[in-house]
Amino acid sequence: MEKAIRASRQVCPFMKYANTASLQKLVARKSLLNAASACPVMHHAIEAQKSQIRSYSQMSSASTGNVSAEYAENSSGSSSGSNSTFSASAENLAQYEAQFSKDLQKKHADKSYRYFNNINRLAEKFPHAHLAKESDRVAVWCANDYLGMGSHPEVLAAGHKALDSYGAGAGGTRNIAGHNKHAVEIESTLAKLHYKDGALVFSSCFVANDAVLTLLGRKFPNLVYFSDEMNHASMIQGIRNSRAEKVIWRHNDLNDLESKLRQYPRETPKVIAFESVYSMSGSIAPIEAICDLAEKYGALTFLDEVHAVGMYGPHGAGVAEHLDFDYYANKRTGPLGREGRKIPVNDRVDIISGTLGKAFGSVGGYVAGSKNFIDWVRSYAPGFIFTTSLPPSVMASANAAIKVQTRNNDSRRKQQEAVRYVKESLSDKGIPVIPNPSHICPVFIGDAALAKEASDILLNDHGIYVQAINFPTVARGEERLRCTPTPGHNKELCDQLVNALDQVFNKLNLKRVKQWQLEGRFLDSPEPIWTNKQLQHN
Amino acid sequence: MEKAIRASRQVCPFMKYANTASLQKLVARKSLLNAASACPVMHHAIEAQKSQIRSYSQMSSASTGNVSAEYAENSSGSSSGSNSTFSASAENLAQYEAQFSKDLQKKHADKSYRYFNNINRLAEKFPHAHLAKESDRVAVWCANDYLGMGSHPEVLAAGHKALDSYGAGAGGTRNIAGHNKHAVEIESTLAKLHYKDGALVFSSCFVANDAVLTLLGRKFPNLVYFSDEMNHASMIQGIRNSRAEKVIWRHNDLNDLESKLRQYPRETPKVIAFESVYSMSGSIAPIEAICDLAEKYGALTFLDEVHAVGMYGPHGAGVAEHLDFDYYANKRTGPLGREGRKIPVNDRVDIISGTLGKAFGSVGGYVAGSKNFIDWVRSYAPGFIFTTSLPPSVMASANAAIKVQTRNNDSRRKQQEAVRYVKESLSDKGIPVIPNPSHICPVFIGDAALAKEASDILLNDHGIYVQAINFPTVARGEERLRCTPTPGHNKELCDQLVNALDQVFNKLNLKRVKQWQLEGRFLDSPEPIWTNKQLQHN
Repeated sequence: MEKAIRASRQVCPFMKYANTASLQKLVARKSLLNAASACPVMHHAIEAQKSQIRSYSQMSSASTGNVSAEYAENSSGSSSGSNSTFSASAENLAQYEAQFSKDLQKKHADKSYRYFNNINRLAEKFPHAHLAKESDRVAVWCANDYLGMGSHPEVLAAGHKALDSYGAGAGGTRNIAGHNKHAVEIESTLAKLHYKDGALVFSSCFVANDAVLTLLGRKFPNLVYFSDEMNHASMIQGIRNSRAEKVIWRHNDLNDLESKLRQYPRETPKVIAFESVYSMSGSIAPIEAICDLAEKYGALTFLDEVHAVGMYGPHGAGVAEHLDFDYYANKRTGPLGREGRKIPVNDRVDIISGTLGKAFGSVGGYVAGSKNFIDWVRSYAPGFIFTTSLPPSVMASANAAIKVQTRNNDSRRKQQEAVRYVKESLSDKGIPVIPNPSHICPVFIGDAALAKEASDILLNDHGIYVQAINFPTVARGEERLRCTPTPGHNKELCDQLVNALDQVFNKLNLKRVKQWQLEGRFLDSPEPIWTNKQLQHN
Repeated sequence: MEKAIRASRQVCPFMKYANTASLQKLVARKSLLNAASACPVMHHAIEAQKSQIRSYSQMSSASTGNVSAEYAENSSGSSSGSNSTFSASAENLAQYEAQFSKDLQKKHADKSYRYFNNINRLAEKFPHAHLAKESDRVAVWCANDYLGMGSHPEVLAAGHKALDSYGAGAGGTRNIAGHNKHAVEIESTLAKLHYKDGALVFSSCFVANDAVLTLLGRKFPNLVYFSDEMNHASMIQGIRNSRAEKVIWRHNDLNDLESKLRQYPRETPKVIAFESVYSMSGSIAPIEAICDLAEKYGALTFLDEVHAVGMYGPHGAGVAEHLDFDYYANKRTGPLGREGRKIPVNDRVDIISGTLGKAFGSVGGYVAGSKNFIDWVRSYAPGFIFTTSLPPSVMASANAAIKVQTRNNDSRRKQQEAVRYVKESLSDKGIPVIPNPSHICPVFIGDAALAKEASDILLNDHGIYVQAINFPTVARGEERLRCTPTPGHNKELCDQLVNALDQVFNKLNLKRVKQWQLEGRFLDSPEPIWTNKQLQHN
């Protein structure tokens, strides 16, 4: 209050000439505060500063450090830890802790509780890792560093260089000190990669999907989402958080999608949200046909290419590029993929989201789209605006990886060869792989406890790390070992995996293909999207 | 269909002995499909595979690459770019583009449209950066690399080492190949830093706040949030997305908070969500008094220490540690901060969130709390589960920075000395700094266009980068230049800043302290939370 008086004397004619003693009396009786509250000038000050003053006076009593020796002695007896069993805080906390425990018990009971494996992927021994102990080595068979870009020399060199020149962090949000040449460069690279006018980088593609879908739903009145039932959690979250109407269509089912689109007038804003490669099953969306429907019914298309970028298309732009392989392979002068079509599928997809954290070997996510769209997201999405930029070294590494992957198809082809070999070898042994045309090899188990046991045996007895995938990543009863062959998994490693799985299937008496077929599963086996011809291309 | 027939022959006694020609006839007339639909075995298969088959057949028509030469010639005329003005897609897109443009126009009109400055912070020249051109150098005055840890030798060394040994990316989510010794180590370091049983790392603290607050509100029936009106966007988002009831209390106003808490029965689950240092104003919450209220009314406390970790407390754990400075400085045997108190404030805060991206110089965020709570978040929060882990090098760098900062108070003290010097020098010139007890120096402008102009002049004429802070980061009319002195800002740099600001204030005729005081502002000036005594400590 002393300070407020001093300050107000500088501006108030009354205060300026008032006698200090009488002012102090007024203060003591709180009359000054009352008088000041009625003053047109001081009134604002009091309102504005009240909370600040109150906050600070509360705080400073605890923070000045001017503690008397007497008090110090009194309190030292109780200072051996939190001792919170005697506090009101602990009593409080008990009801919350009870809920935490109850929820965790549920996970233990249904075997969906997760035990993380300590996997240290060795850059110089890709695809190998060491466990908690450096001498315990395993072959990693489930990472999403799909092309081994995380340890590519150009990627590492770019990371080191940026780290040396620009330090470990960006130092701020994109608006405040965190925008730099690395952000400019990678967004330019990404826009080009996807043949779009712009791209925007986020902390992750989880954040990108969440932020963009939330924003679209909030800003467009009456927007309706049409969401594939197998969409990733990040899309589900974004759609949910937007609070827009959501219509779920059956996985990859165009009839179902159309029957649902048809129920809304053309002028209703709509977004069809879907993925190209569904990461847990390896299924691939009918992108072109979805674009047909989008145009017929007036919907925006939002395509998540997270598990496709780097791996499909003649430049690794994803499945949307792959569908016009020859066209893009020939610098956009080759033939388009389907007779009579005038526009490449990729150009018909309005928004593409992708990741820097899987085939590009680093971390972070992005969206690509029209110039206005990107500027709009940049300007309005809290998940973009209010967060620290990725470190320069991360952006530099990812940028280098994209450049390596746009250069030629070598890694993509090697990966596809490994995938074919593993799928065929597993098929020969009757080990069930969920049929799909992509690079994912989901070995089906169908039981949470057995999947974990199989994974544990592979790790402990065979030096092979394939994480058991359980709920909520897949539905209950759909548990699997999701294998991801890379260009680094040579024939020897593939054979090891297949033989080990064969032994584990015997040991645990797991159902093989024939048994599942009796239940009507695994009858189909689609051709890989990378055709024989494409694998032989130069 | 051929494949389905082949496969079903293995399991179906009818199919096994049926004549191929007659089967093919059945296929042609679709009778086989009808018959199969009635079969108890095949029925499942047809349902399960329908979408897969449909999807793939749609897709493969566009992806086989078996395009005839004739078609290639026909289509090449339309292949020079997206040419989408003639497509149904473009017509579609028009309504969406119109909305994007309209929203962007609004931002231009009210001067809140953001122009990012290209700032490349030089590790060897901290706190300097180069602009787009490498020869254009500026002193950075607004980064959140508060202690220069982004370029600390130990931090860089740890980053390089991890990059060399473990590559550029983690390669997966925490559950699938992305859990490693770096995650284990940093979470152990963070738990210790905050004197909690556990900690969990996220992509960012935006994600951490969003994920944890969403989860609490969803899992606790009838939970009510009590949220400080100045809370960060990430907390607002998390609370909003939880769909729990939200009660907003006036910034740092304990009376208001209590009057609102009082309206709910004790058994109603409650969370008081607040920050220690509010980053745009520098105000500090009355943490201890909030804990008192939390205990009185049965609420959990959720404290965001993002702008405090590294900088407050004798080990850099934040303001909650700082409030019992002597206690923690003396290995939890010294006196507590307030007479009669038996429990350190830090132990009364249930959940602390923090960042690796500011004073710890890297990127990423975290929460710390009880063992059960951390395990619960780990098990249930989609924003944690479904996203790629931070790269080993990022976690290693951040871990090194925390270790540097827990070692001694040197950086913190140097930072506080610089802060005091800048605040005093600005005060001497009558340049308005929003009064606060922390390290933030928010130079008040109060107008979006003027703030941008001031920032541009500083950058272009004085080689000083201070971003103008506008809506939505601060309220309209509250625009400011937020300066963040660091240990690297020596007297010379500080004098440059103050003199440059003085000239800019003259040039743009910006209001100084006396003029604002006539409007009742900037009358108060709280003592810094780092006391004189604490600054002299060893």
